[in-house]
Parts: sequence; structure tokens; C-alpha cells
Amino acid sequence: MTTDFPDALHAPLSRVQTAFDPALFAELSAEWRTCLLAHFERVANREEKVLNWDPPYANIALARQYLQQGTQHQTDQHPVDMKSQVDLEDISLRFRQLLQASLDHGQNLHHPRYIGHQVPASVPLAGLFDAMGAVTNQVMAIYEMGPWATAVEGALVQEIGQRLGFATNSFSGLVTHGGSLANLTALLTARNVMLENSWTSGMHSRTDSPVIVTHEAAHYGIARAAGILGIGTDHILKAGLDSRHRLDPVQLDQLLTELQSAGKTAMAVTACSCATPVGAFDPLEEIAEVCQRHQVWMHVDAAHGGAAMFSDRHRHLLKGIELADSVICDAHKMMFVPALCAFVFYRNRDHRFQAFQQSAPYLFDPSAPGMAEIDSGMRTVECTKRAAAMGLWGLWSLLGEQILSDMVDVTFELGQVFHRKLTDAPDFEVLHQPECNIVAFRYLPEEIRSSPQADKSAFQRKLRHRLIESGQFYIVQAEIDGCAALRVAIMNPTTTPGDLDDLLDALRVLGRELFTA
Amino acid sequence: MTTDFPDALHAPLSRVQTAFDPALFAELSAEWRTCLLAHFERVANREEKVLNWDPPYANIALARQYLQQGTQHQTDQHPVDMKSQVDLEDISLRFRQLLQASLDHGQNLHHPRYIGHQVPASVPLAGLFDAMGAVTNQVMAIYEMGPWATAVEGALVQEIGQRLGFATNSFSGLVTHGGSLANLTALLTARNVMLENSWTSGMHSRTDSPVIVTHEAAHYGIARAAGILGIGTDHILKAGLDSRHRLDPVQLDQLLTELQSAGKTAMAVTACSCATPVGAFDPLEEIAEVCQRHQVWMHVDAAHGGAAMFSDRHRHLLKGIELADSVICDAHKMMFVPALCAFVFYRNRDHRFQAFQQSAPYLFDPSAPGMAEIDSGMRTVECTKRAAAMGLWGLWSLLGEQILSDMVDVTFELGQVFHRKLTDAPDFEVLHQPECNIVAFRYLPEEIRSSPQADKSAFQRKLRHRLIESGQFYIVQAEIDGCAALRVAIMNPTTTPGDLDDLLDALRVLGRELFTA
Repeated sequence: MTTDFPDALHAPLSRVQTAFDPALFAELSAEWRTCLLAHFERVANREEKVLNWDPPYANIALARQYLQQGTQHQTDQHPVDMKSQVDLEDISLRFRQLLQASLDHGQNLHHPRYIGHQVPASVPLAGLFDAMGAVTNQVMAIYEMGPWATAVEGALVQEIGQRLGFATNSFSGLVTHGGSLANLTALLTARNVMLENSWTSGMHSRTDSPVIVTHEAAHYGIARAAGILGIGTDHILKAGLDSRHRLDPVQLDQLLTELQSAGKTAMAVTACSCATPVGAFDPLEEIAEVCQRHQVWMHVDAAHGGAAMFSDRHRHLLKGIELADSVICDAHKMMFVPALCAFVFYRNRDHRFQAFQQSAPYLFDPSAPGMAEIDSGMRTVECTKRAAAMGLWGLWSLLGEQILSDMVDVTFELGQVFHRKLTDAPDFEVLHQPECNIVAFRYLPEEIRSSPQADKSAFQRKLRHRLIESGQFYIVQAEIDGCAALRVAIMNPTTTPGDLDDLLDALRVLGRELFTA
Repeated sequence: MTTDFPDALHAPLSRVQTAFDPALFAELSAEWRTCLLAHFERVANREEKVLNWDPPYANIALARQYLQQGTQHQTDQHPVDMKSQVDLEDISLRFRQLLQASLDHGQNLHHPRYIGHQVPASVPLAGLFDAMGAVTNQVMAIYEMGPWATAVEGALVQEIGQRLGFATNSFSGLVTHGGSLANLTALLTARNVMLENSWTSGMHSRTDSPVIVTHEAAHYGIARAAGILGIGTDHILKAGLDSRHRLDPVQLDQLLTELQSAGKTAMAVTACSCATPVGAFDPLEEIAEVCQRHQVWMHVDAAHGGAAMFSDRHRHLLKGIELADSVICDAHKMMFVPALCAFVFYRNRDHRFQAFQQSAPYLFDPSAPGMAEIDSGMRTVECTKRAAAMGLWGLWSLLGEQILSDMVDVTFELGQVFHRKLTDAPDFEVLHQPECNIVAFRYLPEEIRSSPQADKSAFQRKLRHRLIESGQFYIVQAEIDGCAALRVAIMNPTTTPGDLDDLLDALRVLGRELFTA
């Protein structure tokens, strides 16, 4: 090789060969495994903090310092000699330190007392399948770039779509990087189907003032989609909710009728399975009937609750989802695989190429037009896409879909357990009967409850900050009926009822500190 | 725990505890390491095919079969007993089989004869950092959800932005899932800045027919962005190229002048560093001068070529990039980390919140407004985002930025080596002088060259299909001057000049088979 290369490149070539040497991978992957195993053991035993809190600018400065040390090291030392035991030990040690630093400054989602955002303690073995894809850089866009990654995604789309209730061979689906992108992709398809020529001509030729009707508590990604797609965030209309925080089909019907009278085009209605604040599942069957009558595209954001499809106990929450024109569901939420792996489904497979429509001769081979059915890039925002569904495929193939049902059943039951504990605790305010593993509540001890001066919202927020920065628990917040509340999403099926008891006690102790301060 | 749970959930709970048991991770991660190490060794020694080609429907059927076997197994067997050696061996074996099946049906990007799409043989140790993030499910959106992941991204944005030439403290940046999303995010910002109120009011109130001016060979993601953002794909105008396939500043100037006369708003000009077909780098300094004069947003898609910033030999190709309003650069291309990790930069940090503008009370804490500067979700399409920059941070921190320079230098030099070999081979057509590691060419033996009947495009395409399905090499195709061509992107720095000699020979052998068939 060296004869083809100028002298100046001999040293770079040697360093590059070391970096790619399988012997180096052998060394470092052993460290990797030791480090992660110790981590999982400590976290499972509650020996670590949940959140390792440090102020952001301190962490950023530290992360930069490591980068600079890397550059420093490169100039101080000779290149790594793979035959030198000293060199191997040095690089292994520094590798281990970098991994450990990352874990020591991160959020521990696998801690049973992480009960926060809707991102799970992913099943570690699902992580290993995902990690296999990462290390070998499995990607797709066109089939030949990732035949197996494409096949895995295709297989899961078929299996999951059927479990959602779509008829075999008549639906279509895809995987993308997260719920926001999934919602964006589905609503882009809705726009292109409902507003003819909007893809090619743009939105600026329109005179019909299109709007999107949405759940009042819809994820912010829906309003963002309106901003991105040229609809405008001002043209998001919120349909009213019923007493259980669910989209009310009667109010929806009225709103759609009013829009029609005003000459406005309702481009889509977005429902939730479930909405974020209290985890309420919308009555999809009734909503579908209203949408069909008004000929509006029905979209369901089932990012969190879609996984109830696997559970005999909870499948009823999704009744009517098979009537939606588009549905999204995040496997990196209640299917407990690492982020990001979000599914989009279209009930009518004729819509599968409506989101994006154009040529890229260096990618999509005109001599093999049938491949458009297979090439993932035809249906996703991403061109190159990582093998995002590998974790779910591996988990399901190894343990069967029963594990998916089990995790839903156990965490949803923990929601009920927590609700009972709150109901039994007079110093806590119960805000709703949970339908899943999301529970919103307030800590309102007598001192706060009875004080006219107390800022109840500020108290909940301060209390939460104290709690999470202490590292004892990680929980989140919500705004319910105009006032801040505490909120848990039980995203780790190894969280115990005892952990939930301890959460209430921790809030009591920190709360007392706060109002006696 | 069991006292709080109905009887029906005792079995699910037990299965879930097994799935999350660190002892199971200990067992399976050992298999994982053994399997991947053997894989890297075989691939480095060219003992595997590059692409494991099977028809798509066969692979999808097989991937579904594994899912069904998982479900079958779950019902046939008792739950895994972690104390039973037989059970542990059974699950380890099945885990290993699933991993191996995935590798046996995939594309081997680490094979030195993978010389195809612009997705690299990622440095395996960068993959281990990425995999640590995957297995422990490190994510971000708000700082507290991923303090270290957020810090790592922030540190890299600072270091890379400075190396692109932006002034410290005056620029801003973010990481997103891939080049297409990065281009979309930057152009969304451009739209919101250039077309006032387009975020809130939508595009349908406009009368100024906004257009995007782009490189003729721009990635299809640019036209898609126009479709998504409500500009319309019809309103993409292509500026002419010079003889070296570069955006021509003179023709650009004329086009912008014409647009102004016609009363149309040029929303943005997108340049390439480099364009995909032959890897040509646009003259950014001259383009910036034209854009400034016409007061148009200048965007540079440096997805592939941006990494030249690390190289003393090649940095000159990016001269003027620091004058662009927005720049994107994929670390999962020429920084050789696993997909997806794409950077977006804004020269003017005042634009950092222009892409998205709204509230999400359950995420962005109104009691801590300063955190908006830190929370990644304020600046990216993604809400939950995986720790995509961990691989790059680890690689740089361990080996220093020199390794980034080395990989650019070695692969760009291999482009020159290959060009010399093509020039010396009379049966190959040289199409351009390469500026980087992308080289387009044609195999035109005398039989094809001199035949008036021969369909030269069809010949290149058929030849490529034969080559890649044989598993000997993976290369791609391009359309150059209206005729199909072969194209390599040398995305593995361990590819040798000998591999490139063998590529020419393999094309000769398969080509002969084709025209004697």
C-alpha cells in the first residue's frame, strides 16, 4: 500500500489501521462489558443516584476538557502500538474512564426510582441488539444498503399493523426517529392527500385556510408540524375535552360543522392514545365516526399507549384505532426498547408514497423500479436511517411478544397501585383515576392546603426540583387545570410498590424542608 | 411486591424481572462480544461477502419467521429460570443465533471492499461509545433527562463550530438524526427568518412566491424540504454549474437578479461541500459574496465534505464556509462514527430558536426559563433524542482529533490513487479529477465503446448489479451528463490500493460475462 502513498501519509495510515484493528476492539469491548455490567448491578440495587445532577455549564466544560485531553494525548504520545502491553493498558484505562465519566454524569433510566418522562428503562438485551446495529453501522435508505435492517423493519410493520387491527395487505407503515418525526410524517401525508398539489405548488397558492383540529393536551409536536408544514401554528384549533380529559366527540362534531360553514378546510383531526398530562385515552370509535362523516383525515398519536395492543387486559383502550387514517406508536416508550424507534401506519396503503415524491437517480435505481416498495428512503424523512427496529426485533424474537404484554400489564398495574397509595394519603391530592402508568397528583400538606398565601404551583415545582436534584427519584411535572402538578410515568417494570411508598415519604421530607425554610 | 398485585400478574412480573436481570445481561453481553469480534476479524480479512444479497421478500419472510419463533418459544417453554444452567445456555444460544442471522443477511460496511454509499466503516471504538448510550438508553430533550448527553453535544458544537471558522460565542448549533433532517431544520430556520410570520400564519397568506435556489446536483433532501415546508417542489430553481460540476457564482448572480425583477423572493441559496455525484466542492467565498449582495440566506450542505475542516491538506476546500448563514455536516459520514449524527450550525446565534417556537409546559419548565438555552428539544425536530454525538465524543476524547484528520487524508488520497489507476486503464472512462474520496467512472471496453447499438447506461447498471450481488465489492451508481456511471465513495480507510486494482479486474470479468452472454 505504502508505494502508492506519499510519505506524509504513512503515519496517518498507521494510526488509522490501529483504530480499526479488531485486536483493539477485543480489548475495549471487554472493558465495555465489565463497565456496563457493574453499572446495571449498581443501578438495580439502588446504589446509584437516579439523576446525577450538575449544572449544565459545568458539564459542558468537563465534556470539552475530555476532548482537549484527547488532542493533548495524541501530541504527547507516540501512536498506540498494538503489540505493546503498556500501550494497550493505557488506552483501555482511558477508554474505561471515559465510559465511566459518561455514566457518572448521566441520567439512570434503569434505576427503579426513575419514574419520570415517557422514556423507558429499556430491556438490556434489546439494547444489545440495538448496539450490534450501532457497532457494525447497520443502516438503510435503499434495500441493498441494509437488506436485513430493511427486512426487520418490514416484518415488524406487518406484525404490529395487524395487531392494531389493520387488514392484512391493505395497510402500510414505516419506522422513523421519534414520535415528533412520526407525527410530522403522518401529517405531511395528510396534507398532501387532503390539499391537492401542496407538495409541488406549495401552500402559498391556497385560499381555503386549512386548519388542523387537535386535542387540547396534544404533544407540542402536533403544533410544530403545523408550523413546519406551512399550515401555521395559528391554524391549530383545539377541540374541547370531557371530564376525563378525553377529546369530546360531540364538541368535535360542532367544531367541524362550524369550520365547514366558515369555508375552512379541516385538514386533519389528531386524537391521543393517550394524551400526555394524565394519560387519558380518547374514544377513538366515536371520533372516527365524526371524522368519516365530515370527511376529515383522522390521525392518532398512540406514541405512548399503542403498546396496549399487546395486552389482553388493556387492548380495549385502543378500540377504534383501526379506523384512523394514520397512527403513530413509539417502540421506545411502552415496548421498552432504546430510543429512537417510532412507527407510522397508514390504514390505506395507497397513501404510502404520498409524503415524499421525487427522484434521486444515484439512490433509487430506475432500472429496478419495483424496489420503491422496499427502499425505506421513499417513505421516511431520513435518507440514511439507522437500523432503529433491531432492538424490538431481537427482544420479540428472543422472548416472544408475551414480554411486551407483560411490561404493559405490570407498569399499568403499578399506576393503579400508586393511585391507591395516593388515595390513602390525606396530604396528597388525587387528580384523576389513571388509565395507564401515568399518574398526576399534588403534594398538599395541611400547611400549604390551608394557606391562602401559598403559591401551590410554585410549591410543586420547587419540590420537584429538590427531589430530582437530590438523586433520590426522578419524576416530572404537568399543568392540570391551570395549576402545576407532579407527575409520574412508571417506565421501569422493576419499580416496586415499596419504591412508590418511599416516593411519597421523600416528598413529605423535602416538602417539610421547603415550607419550614 | 406481590401483595399489591393481583394473582394474574405474578407470572408477568416474574418474566419481566428475568428480562431485566443483570445476570442475563452478563451472559448475553459475553456472547455479543464474541460474536462481534469474530465478525470484525472475518470482515477485516475479507473472508465474508461485502453485501449478503437475498431478495427482499425472502428476507422479510425470514425476519417474520424469527418473530413467530419467539412467540412460539414463549408458549412452549416455562419462563427462563436464571438459576438453571440449561435455561441460560438455551437463551444464550438463541441470542447468538439471532445476532449471527442479522450479520449473515446484512451489508458489511466494515469490509475493505465496501466502497459504496457515503456511509462509513465506522471506527469500532466509536461504536462502543454509541452502544453504551444505546444500552443504557441515554437520551435528551430537556437537560435533566440527559445532562451528559446534552453536555457532550454542546461541547462538540463549540469545538466543531470554531473549526468551521465561526467566531466564538457568536454561533449556535445542534445535532439531529441525519443530513436530510439537518437540511430541513436549517431551511426551516431560513424560511422563518426570511419569510416573516410563516411559522404562525402559515404559507397560504403569502403573495411573493418564495423560491429556493439550489445546486443542480443537490441532494434530494433539499427539494423535499421545499415540499415539506410549504414552498413547493416546483419552486426549487437550479443554478447552473461550471465545467467542474460546481455551482457557478456568475450564473447564480444572474438568476438572483432575474428573480428580483420578477418580484419573487429568493428564500435561500443552497451550496454543496461537496455535491454527491462527483464530490465537487462549490466556491463558497464567491457564492457568499453573491448571496450577501442579494441579501439571500446562504446554506451549505457539507454533510460529506465538512470533515475536511480537520485536515491541513484539505481544509482549503471549505474556504468561505464561515460566511454561510447555516451549515450542516454529518459526523456519520467523514468523521467515521455510526449513523446518525448530523450537525447544524447557524453563523448568527440569534437564529437558534427561529426554527421552532412554542410552549410545552410539561417539558420546558417555566420556573427555569434560562434552561431554554440548554434544552436540546428547543432547537431540534426531535423531542426525545438519542445521545447521537456520544460516538464522536468518545473517539475524539480517546484518540484526539488527529484521527479525524488522518481518516480524511487517507480516504481522500485513495480517491487520487483510484483516479490514477483509472487513467492508466484504457478500458475505463475517467469522468473527472476527484477532489475527495468520491470518484465516478465508466467501464467501457472496446466492445461497448465502439458499438453504436450498445446501451451504455444499461451496461453500467447491469454491471453494477452483478458486481454487488456477487458480494465481491459494493459500489454505487450516478448519472453524469445524462448517462449512467459507476461511482465509488471510499468510506473505509483500511481499503487498500490492491483492493482498487481488484475492483477494476472484477468489473472486467463480470463485464465480459455480460456482453458475451
